[in-house]
Amino acid sequence: MNFCTSCGSEVALRIPQGDDRERFVCVSCETIHYVNPRVIVGCVPVYEDKVLLCKRAIEPRYGYWTLPAGFMENGETTPEGAARETWEEAEARVSQLELYRIFDVPYISQVYMFYRCEIDDGQFGVGPESLESALYREEDIPWDEIAFPPVKETLREYFKDAAEGRFPVRVSAIEYKRRIKE
Amino acid sequence: MNFCTSCGSEVALRIPQGDDRERFVCVSCETIHYVNPRVIVGCVPVYEDKVLLCKRAIEPRYGYWTLPAGFMENGETTPEGAARETWEEAEARVSQLELYRIFDVPYISQVYMFYRCEIDDGQFGVGPESLESALYREEDIPWDEIAFPPVKETLREYFKDAAEGRFPVRVSAIEYKRRIKE
Repeated sequence: MNFCTSCGSEVALRIPQGDDRERFVCVSCETIHYVNPRVIVGCVPVYEDKVLLCKRAIEPRYGYWTLPAGFMENGETTPEGAARETWEEAEARVSQLELYRIFDVPYISQVYMFYRCEIDDGQFGVGPESLESALYREEDIPWDEIAFPPVKETLREYFKDAAEGRFPVRVSAIEYKRRIKE
Repeated sequence: MNFCTSCGSEVALRIPQGDDRERFVCVSCETIHYVNPRVIVGCVPVYEDKVLLCKRAIEPRYGYWTLPAGFMENGETTPEGAARETWEEAEARVSQLELYRIFDVPYISQVYMFYRCEIDDGQFGVGPESLESALYREEDIPWDEIAFPPVKETLREYFKDAAEGRFPVRVSAIEYKRRIKE
């Protein structure tokens, strides 16, 4: 951040009064500009014993498979955002959304929230950000071609939980070191 | 938003190519400035059969009681943020954090995430943003002086769940109309 969004003057890193960390503060109008983590909302869309994956048509991880997910938008709820992303990326309408998995990714200041859900009538398509979409049974998942660590972990847990018929909500953090290893 | 954070030129609302909603786009360098929801992290800090509340020393809702909570910061996880806020507002160290309650508040683009936790040794104090702090049994909670609807609902649910000995993770949305009524 170089310039103030309110007045266009330069900003400088300063610790505002009563605060304990550096913020971008306008040198002219003194507006404090807070920068906060972003939420990524997505679905684990299920039909029978299969999960819907999309092959990414965009970077990062072009050509790798992922669960439909993306940045939460202003004015929507987390399940609304998860359903919207599932429509945009896989042209699937979903229902019965239940919170399933939260990942904190502090080194990039992101929070992932995945909802389990049912694909209405098992119907889906291919959205503009996907090369293809497909329903996968556990044994057919392309494990070596999954785009992101949180997606791989969520899929592993989902099939294990489905076999046991219980879906506890889990929260954990993805650390930088771990990502490098994968 | 009036000016570009990258180059200081004016921004205009436009729908970028491949997008379906208006964004602030710089008229000079064409940087797209996304604005996303913010996460509020907090705790339900428990000691024996009591919950720790803080009386707000800041607006909004000066003088009303709340659970310790505040904006999640970059570089931290959601439970780290919840524990940090509990230290800042009530000088309590907490452990055994378990995700408990999520509220979507779409009309102000916020997501609340509350963690249940234990107060280490039952010790607490009064942080700079609080007038006082206190442990409350259910029957002593100042229900008419609770600062925010999500806090009131979380407290009601907590005592009901504690009586039943089970703490399911709940997700719901706070709508504008409902807030007006309360």
